[in-house]
Amino acid sequence: MTRAMNFNAGPASLPLAALERAREELVDFEGSGMSVMEHSHRGKVYEKVHDEALALVAKHLGVSTSEWDVIFVQGGATQAFAQLPMNFLPHGHIADYVVNGAWGEKAVSEARACEGLRAGEVRIAGTTAEGKSYTRVSRQDELTLSPGAAYVHVTSNETIHGLEYGVDAAAPFPKAEAPLFVDMSSDIFGRVVDVSPFSLVYAGAQKNIGPSGVTIVAARKELLARGRTDIPSIFQYRTHAENRSLYNTPPTFGIYLVRNVLRWLEEQGGVTAMEARNRKKASALYDAIDGSGGFYRCPVDRSCRSLMNVVWRLPTPELEATFVKEADAQQMVGLKGHRSVGGIRASLYNAVEPAWCEALAGFMKDFAKRNG
Amino acid sequence: MTRAMNFNAGPASLPLAALERAREELVDFEGSGMSVMEHSHRGKVYEKVHDEALALVAKHLGVSTSEWDVIFVQGGATQAFAQLPMNFLPHGHIADYVVNGAWGEKAVSEARACEGLRAGEVRIAGTTAEGKSYTRVSRQDELTLSPGAAYVHVTSNETIHGLEYGVDAAAPFPKAEAPLFVDMSSDIFGRVVDVSPFSLVYAGAQKNIGPSGVTIVAARKELLARGRTDIPSIFQYRTHAENRSLYNTPPTFGIYLVRNVLRWLEEQGGVTAMEARNRKKASALYDAIDGSGGFYRCPVDRSCRSLMNVVWRLPTPELEATFVKEADAQQMVGLKGHRSVGGIRASLYNAVEPAWCEALAGFMKDFAKRNG
Repeated sequence: MTRAMNFNAGPASLPLAALERAREELVDFEGSGMSVMEHSHRGKVYEKVHDEALALVAKHLGVSTSEWDVIFVQGGATQAFAQLPMNFLPHGHIADYVVNGAWGEKAVSEARACEGLRAGEVRIAGTTAEGKSYTRVSRQDELTLSPGAAYVHVTSNETIHGLEYGVDAAAPFPKAEAPLFVDMSSDIFGRVVDVSPFSLVYAGAQKNIGPSGVTIVAARKELLARGRTDIPSIFQYRTHAENRSLYNTPPTFGIYLVRNVLRWLEEQGGVTAMEARNRKKASALYDAIDGSGGFYRCPVDRSCRSLMNVVWRLPTPELEATFVKEADAQQMVGLKGHRSVGGIRASLYNAVEPAWCEALAGFMKDFAKRNG
Repeated sequence: MTRAMNFNAGPASLPLAALERAREELVDFEGSGMSVMEHSHRGKVYEKVHDEALALVAKHLGVSTSEWDVIFVQGGATQAFAQLPMNFLPHGHIADYVVNGAWGEKAVSEARACEGLRAGEVRIAGTTAEGKSYTRVSRQDELTLSPGAAYVHVTSNETIHGLEYGVDAAAPFPKAEAPLFVDMSSDIFGRVVDVSPFSLVYAGAQKNIGPSGVTIVAARKELLARGRTDIPSIFQYRTHAENRSLYNTPPTFGIYLVRNVLRWLEEQGGVTAMEARNRKKASALYDAIDGSGGFYRCPVDRSCRSLMNVVWRLPTPELEATFVKEADAQQMVGLKGHRSVGGIRASLYNAVEPAWCEALAGFMKDFAKRNG
């Protein structure tokens, strides 16, 4: 088969090696006479996979498991948007949200709905919105942080708008006295991030970690210990930490795939090697944009350009449609920008091959020549 | 390979045909050059799978999609235990729970925790508990139903205690004026159930439907329309119904496997054929128990014996341990009873082959002869 050059925004390309291993052992896992998904989540065969996956997440995130708990939960980042205030924003307290794109907006809207569930008040501590458009992350001096806030929430990478914190030294993550929570759904493990300033990191798996249906939460033990206890056990992150993510039946096959993907990450040289690879991949596209004499335009401030989601415009929506169609015919798929903003978007998650980015950059140059 | 005779309680055996299909197309789905799990959940290739899976659930459940909504959500039945009162039990109202085993107890405990989230009061309308033991379901004349209750909740099959509603005409489902909610996690599609008396049916997938990580909720449209709107969108079942279960990224590969399993169910002749098959499978074991001259004892009242989870005791815990060990050596796995009750449990979900049950019954007779 010819493998498609998959630039989907998520669910997205996964490492071929991780998929091939899954295929090989799908029906008979390690000679057990059944699939890993047919094993009990409380049996030794599955638990080994589960524990390895948890350990690999902690290792690649660079957290000590004596200070942090790493858990697998369900519901994606969207459910976490609600669970964070349910756990950590008691009534009468304030949480600060930094909003630099559509995912930050959504985090705020789900959190505000928790006020009806006896959670506290959600404030926007800073936003770079210009109407519905975002072209950069917030600077520290633009933030209005609430004294004694329960936490400060920030989105590391905005997939729709193509901007990211911390890729460039000129756009560092916010600093705060309150515990800092970060949604890393779309860039976790894509580059080296020092998590020591954070108290909680979370991510849906379906970009850099595995298939959809698995969510990772890593949190400082002292934070988890302070979480509300007057909500259902299933929604308390504490419950999952105390039960090694086996309080209820976890999505076992998804977690098995996470393990396969993180083994591959390990074999590639870990996150450090991945960052070098991802910077090259992104540069190939940003160079094609910047070298196009204005035919392609990236609206994002240079200091905030995402390594994971490169977005750009063409002179007209008609040309954009033609671009997507022609690229698709060459097996480069998933390039249409999000429906809310239009344009083109190439998502370059870890499993996207450098050669695909070179091919796309080549196509971009050719397309510009023919249509410029 | 030799396929293990898998009697796990869940995650459990899946149809070999469904797994083999998954293996065949794991890396390249329908010639698209990528796995189904690498496709966008908003793309045509995945959406076709998604819609087919939803339609198959509705069909086999026997609900009209003009009156019912069928949705896929995450979090298992345990999360549903909390989401049901969040959606349908407003503060100041009462919900009645019928408790005939450990899962009914858990449904109550998660629902009661929702009182802290401005939900209403949870009452036990009837229970057959004798200490921690349950040997039958509640009779209608034992229930104390609250006038004007928001809903009445019942567990169709108790996996740990091995008892089930409606297998025998002498143990029918409860009747109620209030909307009736049923947790069918462990027996959905295992036998024909007339769902017309119910307003909401839910089930974790990992017994009869697919892998863990997918939850099915089927509810009457008029019920969904009445649900609370002052809770986060992600927790409102309405949201998922309005968005065809694509409000946020669903567990796409899990849903794909659900489709494979339900195609297999269809090929087998649907739920009617499955019930006949399951009754034979269960009879093989109950006959072995009843014919053992008291060596094996099933504690469950005859009218409530589960088709899905057959539980029994041996004269001593030591003999039970030997039984499990010897069975395991013959590739009959997953027979140890739940740790909370001990004994033996054989789970006979749809994918469990009749031949495995015959083999187990044969082993039981032989074991009794050698140890009786």
